[in-house]
This record gives sequence, C-alpha cells and structure tokens, in this order.
Amino acid sequence: MTTVIKNGTIVTADLTYKADVLIDQGKIIEIGANLKGDRTLDATGAYVMPGGIDPHTHLEMPFMGTYSADDFESGTRAALAGGTTMVVDFVLPGQGQGLMDAAQMWHNKSTRANCDYSYHMAITWWGQKVWEDMEASVKAGMTSFKHFMAYKGALMVNDDEMYQSFKRVGDLGGLAMVHAENGDVVAELTAKLLAEGNVGPEAHAYSRPPQVEGEATNRAIMIADMAGVPLYVVHTSCEDAHEAIRRARLAGKRVWGEPLIQHLTLDESEYQNPDWDHAARRVMSPPFRNKLHQDSLWAGLQSGSLSVVATDHCAFTTEQKRYGVGNFSKIPNGTGGLEDRMPMLWTYGVATGRLTPNEFVAVTSTNIAKILNCYPQKGAVLVGADADLVVWDPEKSKTIGAANQQSAIDYNVFEGKTVKGLPRYTLSRGVVSVDDGEIKTREGHGKFIAREARPAVNRALSAWKDLTAPRPVARSGVPVTGV
Amino acid sequence: MTTVIKNGTIVTADLTYKADVLIDQGKIIEIGANLKGDRTLDATGAYVMPGGIDPHTHLEMPFMGTYSADDFESGTRAALAGGTTMVVDFVLPGQGQGLMDAAQMWHNKSTRANCDYSYHMAITWWGQKVWEDMEASVKAGMTSFKHFMAYKGALMVNDDEMYQSFKRVGDLGGLAMVHAENGDVVAELTAKLLAEGNVGPEAHAYSRPPQVEGEATNRAIMIADMAGVPLYVVHTSCEDAHEAIRRARLAGKRVWGEPLIQHLTLDESEYQNPDWDHAARRVMSPPFRNKLHQDSLWAGLQSGSLSVVATDHCAFTTEQKRYGVGNFSKIPNGTGGLEDRMPMLWTYGVATGRLTPNEFVAVTSTNIAKILNCYPQKGAVLVGADADLVVWDPEKSKTIGAANQQSAIDYNVFEGKTVKGLPRYTLSRGVVSVDDGEIKTREGHGKFIAREARPAVNRALSAWKDLTAPRPVARSGVPVTGV
Amino acid sequence: MTTVIKNGTIVTADLTYKADVLIDQGKIIEIGANLKGDRTLDATGAYVMPGGIDPHTHLEMPFMGTYSADDFESGTRAALAGGTTMVVDFVLPGQGQGLMDAAQMWHNKSTRANCDYSYHMAITWWGQKVWEDMEASVKAGMTSFKHFMAYKGALMVNDDEMYQSFKRVGDLGGLAMVHAENGDVVAELTAKLLAEGNVGPEAHAYSRPPQVEGEATNRAIMIADMAGVPLYVVHTSCEDAHEAIRRARLAGKRVWGEPLIQHLTLDESEYQNPDWDHAARRVMSPPFRNKLHQDSLWAGLQSGSLSVVATDHCAFTTEQKRYGVGNFSKIPNGTGGLEDRMPMLWTYGVATGRLTPNEFVAVTSTNIAKILNCYPQKGAVLVGADADLVVWDPEKSKTIGAANQQSAIDYNVFEGKTVKGLPRYTLSRGVVSVDDGEIKTREGHGKFIAREARPAVNRALSAWKDLTAPRPVARSGVPVTGV
Amino acid sequence: MTTVIKNGTIVTADLTYKADVLIDQGKIIEIGANLKGDRTLDATGAYVMPGGIDPHTHLEMPFMGTYSADDFESGTRAALAGGTTMVVDFVLPGQGQGLMDAAQMWHNKSTRANCDYSYHMAITWWGQKVWEDMEASVKAGMTSFKHFMAYKGALMVNDDEMYQSFKRVGDLGGLAMVHAENGDVVAELTAKLLAEGNVGPEAHAYSRPPQVEGEATNRAIMIADMAGVPLYVVHTSCEDAHEAIRRARLAGKRVWGEPLIQHLTLDESEYQNPDWDHAARRVMSPPFRNKLHQDSLWAGLQSGSLSVVATDHCAFTTEQKRYGVGNFSKIPNGTGGLEDRMPMLWTYGVATGRLTPNEFVAVTSTNIAKILNCYPQKGAVLVGADADLVVWDPEKSKTIGAANQQSAIDYNVFEGKTVKGLPRYTLSRGVVSVDDGEIKTREGHGKFIAREARPAVNRALSAWKDLTAPRPVARSGVPVTGV
Ligand SMILES: [Zn+2]
Ligand SMILES: [Zn+2]
Ligand SMILES: [Zn+2]
Ligand SMILES: [Zn+2]
Ligand SMILES: [Zn+2]
Ligand SMILES: [Zn+2]
Ligand SMILES: [Zn+2]
Ligand SMILES: [Zn+2]
Repeated sequence: MTTVIKNGTIVTADLTYKADVLIDQGKIIEIGANLKGDRTLDATGAYVMPGGIDPHTHLEMPFMGTYSADDFESGTRAALAGGTTMVVDFVLPGQGQGLMDAAQMWHNKSTRANCDYSYHMAITWWGQKVWEDMEASVKAGMTSFKHFMAYKGALMVNDDEMYQSFKRVGDLGGLAMVHAENGDVVAELTAKLLAEGNVGPEAHAYSRPPQVEGEATNRAIMIADMAGVPLYVVHTSCEDAHEAIRRARLAGKRVWGEPLIQHLTLDESEYQNPDWDHAARRVMSPPFRNKLHQDSLWAGLQSGSLSVVATDHCAFTTEQKRYGVGNFSKIPNGTGGLEDRMPMLWTYGVATGRLTPNEFVAVTSTNIAKILNCYPQKGAVLVGADADLVVWDPEKSKTIGAANQQSAIDYNVFEGKTVKGLPRYTLSRGVVSVDDGEIKTREGHGKFIAREARPAVNRALSAWKDLTAPRPVARSGVPVTGV
Repeated sequence: MTTVIKNGTIVTADLTYKADVLIDQGKIIEIGANLKGDRTLDATGAYVMPGGIDPHTHLEMPFMGTYSADDFESGTRAALAGGTTMVVDFVLPGQGQGLMDAAQMWHNKSTRANCDYSYHMAITWWGQKVWEDMEASVKAGMTSFKHFMAYKGALMVNDDEMYQSFKRVGDLGGLAMVHAENGDVVAELTAKLLAEGNVGPEAHAYSRPPQVEGEATNRAIMIADMAGVPLYVVHTSCEDAHEAIRRARLAGKRVWGEPLIQHLTLDESEYQNPDWDHAARRVMSPPFRNKLHQDSLWAGLQSGSLSVVATDHCAFTTEQKRYGVGNFSKIPNGTGGLEDRMPMLWTYGVATGRLTPNEFVAVTSTNIAKILNCYPQKGAVLVGADADLVVWDPEKSKTIGAANQQSAIDYNVFEGKTVKGLPRYTLSRGVVSVDDGEIKTREGHGKFIAREARPAVNRALSAWKDLTAPRPVARSGVPVTGV
Repeated sequence: MTTVIKNGTIVTADLTYKADVLIDQGKIIEIGANLKGDRTLDATGAYVMPGGIDPHTHLEMPFMGTYSADDFESGTRAALAGGTTMVVDFVLPGQGQGLMDAAQMWHNKSTRANCDYSYHMAITWWGQKVWEDMEASVKAGMTSFKHFMAYKGALMVNDDEMYQSFKRVGDLGGLAMVHAENGDVVAELTAKLLAEGNVGPEAHAYSRPPQVEGEATNRAIMIADMAGVPLYVVHTSCEDAHEAIRRARLAGKRVWGEPLIQHLTLDESEYQNPDWDHAARRVMSPPFRNKLHQDSLWAGLQSGSLSVVATDHCAFTTEQKRYGVGNFSKIPNGTGGLEDRMPMLWTYGVATGRLTPNEFVAVTSTNIAKILNCYPQKGAVLVGADADLVVWDPEKSKTIGAANQQSAIDYNVFEGKTVKGLPRYTLSRGVVSVDDGEIKTREGHGKFIAREARPAVNRALSAWKDLTAPRPVARSGVPVTGV
Repeated sequence: MTTVIKNGTIVTADLTYKADVLIDQGKIIEIGANLKGDRTLDATGAYVMPGGIDPHTHLEMPFMGTYSADDFESGTRAALAGGTTMVVDFVLPGQGQGLMDAAQMWHNKSTRANCDYSYHMAITWWGQKVWEDMEASVKAGMTSFKHFMAYKGALMVNDDEMYQSFKRVGDLGGLAMVHAENGDVVAELTAKLLAEGNVGPEAHAYSRPPQVEGEATNRAIMIADMAGVPLYVVHTSCEDAHEAIRRARLAGKRVWGEPLIQHLTLDESEYQNPDWDHAARRVMSPPFRNKLHQDSLWAGLQSGSLSVVATDHCAFTTEQKRYGVGNFSKIPNGTGGLEDRMPMLWTYGVATGRLTPNEFVAVTSTNIAKILNCYPQKGAVLVGADADLVVWDPEKSKTIGAANQQSAIDYNVFEGKTVKGLPRYTLSRGVVSVDDGEIKTREGHGKFIAREARPAVNRALSAWKDLTAPRPVARSGVPVTGV
C-alpha cells in the first residue's frame, strides 16, 4: 500500500519547494508533482519536513532501583505526537559491565518503541574490557561514545581515562561525546551548600553554575584535540560552554554543541518558585540559566556555532522528584520535552524570525543525522530515504499541559505555553502515527538504526592530524654533541 | 541528445554516494544506478560535483580607458577549465549613470560567455535615480548590491549613503554587499607613503593594512544591522575582518564572509620579491596578508564563520600593471584565479584534511547559490537542476603556469604550484566544455541567471526586526508632567 | 598658615597607611607621624585620599543661545561638595573660530571656579588654521584634543579629518580623544524615528544604540593606530565600545576608556518612565544602557581595561529639557553628576567589593592625572603635590536629592539613592572647601592647570611605530625587471 | 654610615623625576635635591629604580638525589648582578612532610643569600596535616600557595584537592598559585611520544603544547572563582593561557599572569637545534612557544592583562641535563635567567617602545610587591622603604655569555644576545652589591621577608562573594506543596 502526501511545501535543511511525496514500504519512492497513492494525506497549507530526531533521551533509565517514567513506548509516542520520528538513547553499562551486555539490555527495553531509535554507548567505567568492547560497539552500529565529566563516584571518568577513551574512539572512527560539568567541583559545592542549609531545589542550580560547565567543556575540547577525535557536547546550556565551543571551532576544531529546548525557552527563575514541586520538577543538569545564556544559545543556532536542539528527555514523576525533599542532591535529575521540542522551537524560533524554516529542519533533524552518520536515511526528504516525515501545520495551535500530553508523568515543564505550529501528520517509516492530530502510534514498529563509523569529518581530521604530527629532529653524531 | 555520467561518486554539500547522472537539454533528468544516455562520460574513480560558482569576477572591466584583460569569453573559458560553471560579475555604473543602463552594457559584453553568469549591481554613486533603479534591478534579477567603502573620489560611498542604500536593499528583499576598506584612511596612508618615497608595489600593501579592512567590515556590519538587511562581505582577507564577521554572527546577525583563494594560499612575502613585475602582478585590494591571517581564513571555512571561496578575478597584463611604475597607487588592482580556484582549494584544503569533499562543494558552489538565491538551479546535483557539473579526478595533477592557462594574461600568481585534483569533465548546462582535460567551450552558450529577491533569510530577519522595533512609551496626561 | 590632617589613613592608588599630612601654601609639605599645624583637621576613622578629578565636564557650555546651567562656580562647588578637586572642561571653538580665541573665552568663564581646572581642546572643524593652532594649544598646556564622531552638521569630523588631526596630535605629543558614535547613522535613525512618530525621550535612546557607539569606538581606535597616537575614548557606555577598547589594548594599543558614573549605576529603564520630564532629564549621549552593559563597565574597571570614571557633567534645567517636547532630538543632551560621582562609586563599587579603596582612587583621580600628564601635581598624596585632598568618611551617609544639592538645576538623576561614604573635608590646594560637611568654597580660587606634552607613553608608542614603519624593498636593476 | 645616590632620575611604577636618594641602615631615609651622605654613588645619566623582584625561583631545589645548580648564594649573586634585589622561592614539602618542616629546610638553605627573599608554600600533597599547617604558613609570612596541575604521580593535585586547598587559602586571606598544565594529558602524550620513538628534547615541547596549558589555566581560574580566592598563574607562556586569564579578568575576576623573560624572547625553534645539548638546556615547562605566543605575552604586559615578568630560575648543568639522553622525560626541567631578566626585558621591551620605563618597573618589581603584599617595603622608592635599588645605566651594554655570568652552570640560554641597559649599582638594603659593574655581594646578608595575609584585593573579593552568595528560597507551608 502506498501513501502520498499531497499539496504540501517540502521544507528541508536547504530547500523549500512544492511537491508531493510518495511512500511505499516505509521509504520515499518518489517526489514530484501530481503523485498518486493508495492513501492520500493532504498537506495543503502545510510543510512536509523530515521528522525530528532527538539525539538525547533517557527512556526507562535505571535509577535507584526504579526507572525514569517514560519508557520506549510512551517516550516514542510523545516524540511522534510532537513530530519527532527518531530518538537516540544512551546505553549505560553498570560498573564492570561489558558494553555489549548493556546494549542487549537496552535492546530488550526498546522492543516496544513506536519509532526508530539508535544508541549512544556510554563509557561509565574504564578498563581493558571496555577498551575491547568499544570495537564491538562500533561494529554493532553504536559509534558514538558518551563520557560523563560529572556524577563523581558514579559515572564520572577522569582526564586520563577520557584521553584514552577518546583516543580509542578516534582510532575506531567514532564520535566522542561529553556531559560537561566539573564533577569534582560540583561535589564540593553540593557538600558546601548542604552544610550551609541550602537544601532546596534552587540549590541544585547553585551547585552547578555556568562556570563549571564552561570549564568542563573547554577541557573536553582540549582532550579531544589531543586525541584527534571529533567531539559532540551534549546539553550546552550556557554562554560559558558555548564560548569554549566557539573558540574551538574558530581554531578549526571539529566540535558540535547541543542546546536543549528547555534551556532555550525556560530560565533560572523557575527555581525561585515558592512551590517546592514546581522547582524540583525543573531540576536537571545542567540547570536552567538566565536570559543572557538563552540569548547566547539562540545566537549559536543562528550562526552555526551550535548545531542541534535536543531534550535530554528523562522524565520523573512528582513522586520520584520528592525523593529529594530536604536534600536537593537526591532529586532525580531530568525533565521531559520530547513532545514539545519541535512546537516550542517553531514558536520561539521560526515565528519570531530567529530561525528560517530550513534552519529549523537543520537543527531538529538534518544536522544530527549528518553528525551521527545516518543521513540521508534519516533527516532527509529524498527518494530512498526512510519515510520519517512530519506534515507541519503552521497555523495549528495549542496550549501545552500535562492533562493532554503523551508522557507518563503528571506535569509538564512547559505547562501553559501556547505554541503555534504543530504536526498534522507524523509518519514513522510510512506509518501514519499522528493522523490529523490523532495519535495512532504502532507499538513495536520502531527499529534500531545502526550507524557506520568513519564519516568524512573523521577522515579529514585524521589526515590533518597526520600531516601536523610531531616529527623528531634529525641529530647528527653521537646523541649528545658538544657545548 | 542525452548525456550520462557513469560510475562516479556524487559529492554534494551534504551527500556522498555512488550514482549515475542523466542529462537532457541542459538539465539533470535522472540520478540513479545503471542509467543510459546517448553519450557516456566515464567518472570511474572520480567525483561528480556541482560545478563551481565564482561570485566575484570583473571580466572586461573598464579601467582607465581600457579593460581588464580577461573578457567574458576568456574568463569563462578559464572558469570552465578549472571546474567553475558560473560566474557572478559586477555591473559598475558610471557616475550619474542609471543602473539599468549600466546593466545593459554588461549584457552586451557577456554575449560571448561560455558558461552561465549573473550580476551583482554596484552602487557607485547615490541619488534619487539610483534609489529608483534599485527596484528595477531587483525585478531584473540583480538582487545583490555592492558598495565600495574604499576608492575614495571614485566608487566610494559614505556612511549615510550606505545606510540609505542598505535600507533600500532591505526593503526590496535584496542582499547588501561591501568591499570593506576604510577609503579615507587608505587615501591618507597612500599620500603619506608616496611622500616618503615608498613608491613600490610593496607600499600598496602598506597602504591597506588589515586594520583598515577590519574597521570597514565592522562598520558595514553595524550599518546593515541598523538597516535590517543581510550582508555579504567580499574578499575577506584577514583576521581583523573575520573577527568582525564572527562577532556579528555570534550576535545572531546575518552576515557572510568571502575569502579568496589567493588570500588562502599566498602571502605578503610576495611583495618583497626584488622583481618589480612579480610584486606588481600580485597587487590587489585587499593585499596578501601573513600566515596568521591565512590560518584565520582556513579556520573560518572549517567552522562556518566564513562561507564562500571566490577569486575577485580581475586580470591585468604585465604591461597594464606597469602603469604604476614609480607610483604604486597607479598599479591596476587585480589578479587572476578563475582557472585555479578549485584545484588550489582542493589541494590545500581537501588533501590536507582541512576540509571534507562536501565542505569543498559547499564553499565553492552550494553556499553561494543559496546566499544568492539561485539554489538549487545552481550548486546542486538534483533532478531538475541545471547540468552544471564537474567530474573531478582527485588523482589528476599539473603544475600551474602561464604557459598553459586559458586566461589572456602573461603570468599567473600561482605559477609553479603543483595541484592534484582537476576536472576530467566540466559541463555547462549539459555542454561538455572540458572533455577529458581538453577545452571544448562553446562561445555564447552562457546565459544570464536572474535571481529572485526575498529568500527565507530576509524574511526571517525582517520578522525579527519588526518584533524588536522601538516602541513609543505611553505617557499619560499632558506631554510634560510634573517633577 | 599651615594645615594638618591628623589621625587618618592615607589611601592612594597604591598605598594604604596611617600618617598625618601637613599642608602649607597649597602644597603638601610633609607626610608622617605626629605632625602639627596651625589648623588641625581630624581624620579619625576616615581616609585621606587625592581629591577626585573629573576629566569630563561642560560648565556654562553654549547651547542654542543659552548655556548649560552649571557654570564654573556652581559646577566646581558641586565638585568639591562631592570630593572632586579638579575638573577638565572642553574648549569648544565655533565653526571657523581659532582654537586660542576659543580658549580665551573659556578662560574668561572659569575665573569664578572654586577649584582647579584644565581644558581639553575640541576639534570642531578642520582647516589650516586649526592645524596651526594645535601647536599653540599644546604650548598653552592644552595637550588633549577631543573629536566628535557624532553631531552631524555641527561638531562632527569625518574620517579623513580625524586621521589628519590625530596625526597632528601624535606629532605634537598630545592625546587624541573621541566622542564615539556614528553620527551619520544616528542622524538617519533619528529621522526615521521621528518620521514614525517616535518623538519621546525614549526614542533618544533608540536613536543611539550600543552598536553605533561600538562601531565608532572601533573606528577611532583604528585611525589612532594608523596615525600613531594614544587615544582616550570618553563616556564609554556599553559592552560594544568596551569590547573594541579591550581588543585594541590586547593588541598592545594605547587606548583608554572612560565610563561615566551614570552608566555604571543607572539603566535604560529610566526612559520608560511615564513622566516625560523624568525621561528627558536622563537624556544624554550615549544614553543609559541595560544591565549587561553595566556589568561590562564594572568588569572593565576591575580588570583595568577601562581606566577612569567621569561624569560628562552638563546640566540642563527641566525648562531647558522641555525644548524637546514633541521632538526628542531637540532635548538638550546632558545630565549632572559632579557632586555624586564619588559617593555613588564608593557605595556601588567599594562597599560591594567590586573595587578596592585603592582602585577607587585610581579610577577617580590618579589614572586620569597620569593619562593627562598632570601627575603627581594632581592625583597624588606626595610631598610637593598640590594639597587637593579629600578626607573620606566611610560611615557618613545621605540620600541624594535635588533639594540639597549644589548644582543649579532643579532635579538630580540619582534622586533617592542612599550613598554611604562622603567627604568630611575637601581641600582645594589647601583651602578647606568642605569643612566637616559644610560648604565653604572660595569663588575664584581655582587655577588653570597647564599640562606638558609627550609623556612616556607617547614616547614609547613613537619608538615602536618608528621601529615597525614600512620599509621600501630594495630592487635591483631598472625599475621593472623581466617576467 | 649613610649612602647617597646623586644626580639620577628616579623611575618608579608611576613617577619619573630627578632627585637624590639618601640611605641609612638599609632604608631610604630621604628623597630630594642636594642630599649628602657618607658615601656617594653617582647616577648621572642613569635611572634609580626599585630593585627587581623575581617571584619565581628554585634555588638548590632537590632533584633526583641532587640539587639544581644555583643555590641561594650563586642565585642571589646572579640576581643582584642583573639588578634584582629579591627572590621568592618555593618551599616544596616532600610527600607526607609538614609544611613548616619543609619551610625550615628552606630557611636552612637560604642563610647564604646575598639579597632578601621570601617563600611561596607549595601544596604538594593533601591531607589534614597540610590543611592545618597552612594557617601556620600564613602566620609565618608565607601567604601564597602554589599548586601543581602537572607532574602527575609526584607534585600534582587533583581538582577536588585544589578546590579544598583554594578554599582554605581564601579563608586564610592568602593567594592561590598554579603551575597550569594538564598533568594527565601531559603524561599520556609523553608515553605516546616515547612509544613512537620521539625521545629527543624537542619531544618535550610536543608533550606539553599550548592547549594543555590553556586548559589548565582555565580550570584553575574556575576553581579559584568557585572557592573565592585570588589566583596567580605562574609562567604563563602562551596565548591559550593568556586568553583564559584575559577572559577571567574581563569578568571581573582577580587573576594575574606571569610571563617569563625566556618565553618573551626565545622561541620553539631552539628545540630544533641539531645539537642535543643546545635543545636540552632549553627544556623547561612550559616549553618555549612560537612568535604568535610571544606577541600575545608582550601585548599582555602592555595592556595589563599580564602583570609580572619572572624567570622560574632553576639551573641545571649540562651534565644534569644529560640524564635525559634517550628519554626527554628525564631531562631536568628548568633554565636560568636571574641575571638576565632585567637587561633582556629593557632591551626587548623598553628600547623597542613596547614598554615605558615605568611599566618596566611595574612588571619587574612593583606589581609583584603589591600582589604579594610586601609593597612598599619592596618595589618602591619611598622614604621608609627598604633600600633595594638599582641604578640603571641605559647606555651600558654587553653580550650575554656563560663565560662571564654569575650562575653556577656552564651555559646560558641567552648566549650571544647583546643587551643595552645594565645596572651601574645594585643595592640590597643599602649594601652596594654591584658597584660600578663590579660584583661585591655580601654572603648571608639576605633576610627572609614575611608577608601579611588579607590585602585589600582579598577583602574586596570576599565582600563581593558574600554579597552574591546563594540564598535559599523561602517556601511556604509544608516542604512540598501541591501541583
Ligand atoms: Zn547529561
Ligand atoms: Zn542526558
Ligand atoms: Zn573589491
Ligand atoms: Zn572585486
Ligand atoms: Zn560626548
Ligand atoms: Zn561631553
Ligand atoms: Zn612550574
Ligand atoms: Zn617553577
């Protein structure tokens, strides 16, 4: 059975044109005028865009004996509801656990996914076994490796481990990734704040100021440069980190930054809310920042110094959040956003004129598909590409609220925001998962997307590093000559 | 008659894949496997890329009663020989001349062109007539307007004129362009140098240091920001100007910079050559800079803060250059480069690992096609696009020299450089103009490419400027209230 | 008759120590323990500091047939009341008027001054006469030359005039100064705002955004660099200008910036006040900025990238301000501040920990004395220095208000601010002009302070410029050698 | 017995004037005209300046069972020969050794010193004992605490230790100092280079590129900011580190950088010398850099973003250097410079016009005296100050060479450089230690200079940190309120 999207305007990262799109067996098989199919989706007045890709989610993430509340089913349902057709989750091996063992656990969880997904592999500890498994991970299509510079005593890796791991990633043609906060300093500040009686959720923000993120970002960039590997910095939330990324890029380094939709549109005043629940629900790392940092992130998207808008979707219920009453450091870190990312970015970015529609597609989908080397299977409206598409109605409007969301949690950090610009249809490999606004996801339809290593950027970087590698000085005579 | 390019690897600004390309009547009509055509071009081992676009040429440019030596015939022949399939020249109205009159003169000259071309309109004087003609220019497809901040007493416009013109360009949905050097200061420094006996070609460089370019670039950016118009800075040659552009972009401004292949690969030491002719042949504005500035330009291409590589091709013979013996300020400004831009950039950029092949396509073709709003007719390998293509053989090598070049002049500023990476075939709207290395251009084949105004970037910028426009304060009571 | 200041702590730009100060005939004649004099001023619990120097005032400034309201009498009385013991005013020659003629007019006005003063000479037009008079100005002790880049059609000079004037100043060993705003663009924006009905005082701020100040600052710096002269930028109000200054300094250039106390402590929200008078009274150029710019200015003082805190005291009455009802461009530009500069800076700078007491002295007095080359006659607590001193009581407090100020105008832009830290005594060359809080100024006591040209910074800069001057290339044979 | 310096021009950090200086019992007792004393030193044609202070030496430093070759006798003799009258050495406690025990070992060594000296205390390990001893160190006048971010497995401290130590230093009112290189990455790069057969001294430089210094500098700054303590970065050698310092200062942070005379005047090409000894003798950390970095350091001194010129004098003989034949990582790190610092800086800084004579005094003496809080006892020409003076003859010239130096080693890294500007007399607390060019040092004359904690900068910083400290949000009702 074929499906045709008719009468729409195709908007990609670099093109805007009127054409119909014909889909068969999950693939785009034709783009052109006057196409016909077994089923017709009307895109009159709407944009036909590549479905969003959220490269940063934590679905059903293990946490203190329980799990983050959105699993691969509800999470991908929320994603599709908002126009996102692929998520990339993080495989988090336990201490001492092999990478491929952990990957299997994730594969077990994702069987219920409604849309496609891929995995980043996290380097949560370091040893010979990890070093070896990294090759297996790459071969299995998990070519990007996340490193935590924070969460001391748990996930954090030290600089020498990070160098060694980055070196390994570089040799394997993969992508190094970091959660960039100085874990030592966060731990010290946390202890100090608690000792001083600063125990509320606002102190979470005090314990991880922009400086500690900027520092860690800068450090990761240096280590990646020394190791000769491209670097992707997740959840870039502040000018300090953005500055480090800009400076690196302006030195020709291959570094990308990923602001979250939360940091683009919400600010630190949320933590000053007298309602503990309100504040605690916004606890995530990095925390929300002030307007100055927001402006910096928007400018980064406009100028290209920041590349991707993600969510770090990691949803905890109010009840879970309340683990941290009396001690902010026990509040589970994370907020939702999967359903809201694209409407929020359209409303605050495209409608205001900060971004063009093409740039919107680039930062929500195409750029990350290229960075993760799954373009043009994903992130494209091209013949042969997967039919992961969203028919975007720029006139459709709603007010965001927990009451009518897909996510399993009982609140929404964007509660009350009115967005204009919403999916009319969302297609996951041809399956109409949002049908004129109605959710019709198909549980288990989603497949794992394996990715190839060694894209062009890696090859170019390696060539340059070889060309500029240290050369020994030719010395004549005995090793030591006279004065 | 159809032509098929077989067995090649298509490389565009964002894709690399194996496919054949079928061409008919100057257009790409199919891209896929196992295509057949009346004529077959073998691309085995080669890349099939969008032909280059050089957005900055001065062919048969009037100069002191004569003309720059390369006209639209030899210039576009040189272009095609090097893989460039479109040039954008500058219509330069005389003082008091109407814009459309001048455009007609350019149309008369370009009838002999071997490849397609478009025009930027220069604002060389200011008045009601110019203001009016700007709309006609836009309607006639010349939507980009160049302003000279240098050449005092001739082409230079003042800040108030520039603001008014930029404002007009913005209102018309066009693109503002600048040659950014502080003409007042250049004139003062020139007079001082001559008075001090600094009359040789090296003093040309002394008279236009990076500072005067940086300053003017910064100023143009501010004026464009105030006028609400996107800005394109031609021949960005130095860190000072690049810094201003970066700073603007990082504030979310819509500004692009254009380094020339000369500034990327040649440096100021050329002016220290004891041979007057050698030095004088390298006289152009801005002059060549030192290695520090070169590094900055390369980093700009890598990071995206600079967008386009051009040539400012304006070829003068040694005899013409000698007008300036004894007075550097009379040396005609300009160098060639049309034939060498792409091989030089490939050799120094792609082969070293500074740029990926995709980035090469972006900065030689696709980016400027988007900026000038003629994408995807130009700059793309897509069905429906013009068959302006180059089949690039990365193993083909030569040593650049005046003896075997297409340009009409008697020297080459890249003389003696060995390049690796050259066109096997170049196609201008399907016409095989370089055929396995042999030049087979067709005089008069080239057509004028009209461009539409008001691309997405303009619309976004206007929306943002409206949103943030000054608002009067509502004051109660009489205009003036009490203390 | 001798005066001794006893039991205080001397605070200078680089020292803090307990000692008495003995004064005779207007000079400090001894500093040490247990000094005795005919009159004793008790400084117990107080700091004995160099009196403030305000390098930027406009007393009795001609304006539309009338004058700014504070003349040299009331202005210097206000100064002394606030701990400032010297002002530097601007001689403003009329169009075509000789510099020395104008200076004489200023000397006539200043006979009533209560404290010492010096003059900057303004270059308000350009011609041979001006060029010649500049030498006379330097010989007469007016070694600093102000240039207006704004006020088009009146005071504004163009880039070529500015270059020529700067060059002349450099040759004479003087100091170039600029009011840095792009006058062309201000004029265009003003016309546009008025045409759109934006006629209120808030539109004054809209007409001179930070961008136009940043641009002009950057331009002045480039021109000073080309001319080889040190540069002093008056009333640096924003990050844009500060950034340009920082960038210049970081390239080793000799450039200083002068934030005003108004810009450090008041912000643009003042213009949003619904009371027209309130807003109009704050109209000055540059206008007040937002908090981000304020933070930048404070950081500049802390880091040394900004050097001096001034006032640009130019007081107009409410009645005078009302010339601009219905047309903001007619509101006289200027605010007061002479009396409030030091208490405000102490309160917002020293009491908060942003500045040390020594840094307070540096930025209110010593730095400018060095820059203007009247140190250590002024700006010092040294034997032989003028006894221009303030005995500063850090515990003394008041609320600023028009009701109890010295200035002749009917309002105060700091109205309602409570300051802590005020003069107990202010001495002008030994004359106790504030006596335990009581004003006892002596009209006509103030003298003109002539300044020497060619301080060490000028000599160093000239040496460097000579060392790095363009050198002709030695060419062999006939001027033009072979290809 | 009194000594008078007659007919000279006194040059301090902020004054230049003709006066005689009278000295008694090691102190300046009078400054004025026509002074008389028992002994007269003629300063005709010379400058009378504060003797230099070198805040960074390692005399008789323990190293692999032996010691650096210059001890407190030869080291301070070299210092005085070059116009330096005070050195600050580093107490380096062994692992587990108490700080005060180590200090005693240093006091034992310094009994032979020819000039005054002070100590920085190094934090070479971390524990309760160290934490406690820090207070004793401060009380004993050692208020500055050095931390090594490099030398992994030996002196290096981790981020959490550094935070805790910085916090302690801040609480004690002291100064935090860092040797800023990322020790983890240096260790990794070293291992890699050795494994690849890069064993020569040039690989020392490859193992510690500017990036690792810039990163560590940036990190130290962040940690100091979080801990609320002023920071002094020793041996700032490159733009990367300077950039971090600038950025910090521009955010109002209290951070100083210390370039070495070696990095200002020598570059990385030294390591390319085919003579192993030549290269090995230049091995120090950080290594010499390229011209770009040199320019950055000079600009830092000019603009004030860098504050002090030091030497890191740590002299090893050629024989000692040869420990590292076949393995660069075993070459003892360190070069000389004590005797040459001031003549080299005068020649390359003042004579070229990069620095004024006053700035020369500031960066060689006065700034560090202020930073270390021993001003004006040291670093000043003031009545009551120690008579640590140099009579500087700007016409005196020599060629630097090992043959005629004071240092105990057999070579000089500045060998062959001609300097103009040398001491005619150097006085250490009144003792004429260089007498018309002849060395007449007095062994054991030097005394330990204890320094007070909590100077104005610390007090200001603490006030600001208190003012901006995190505040808990007042929440009403039960800890957790409703949704
Ligand atoms: Zn994270
Ligand atoms: Zn995450
Ligand atoms: Zn040009
Ligand atoms: Zn041109
Ligand atoms: Zn002004
Ligand atoms: Zn003024
Ligand atoms: Zn060190
Ligand atoms: Zn050291």
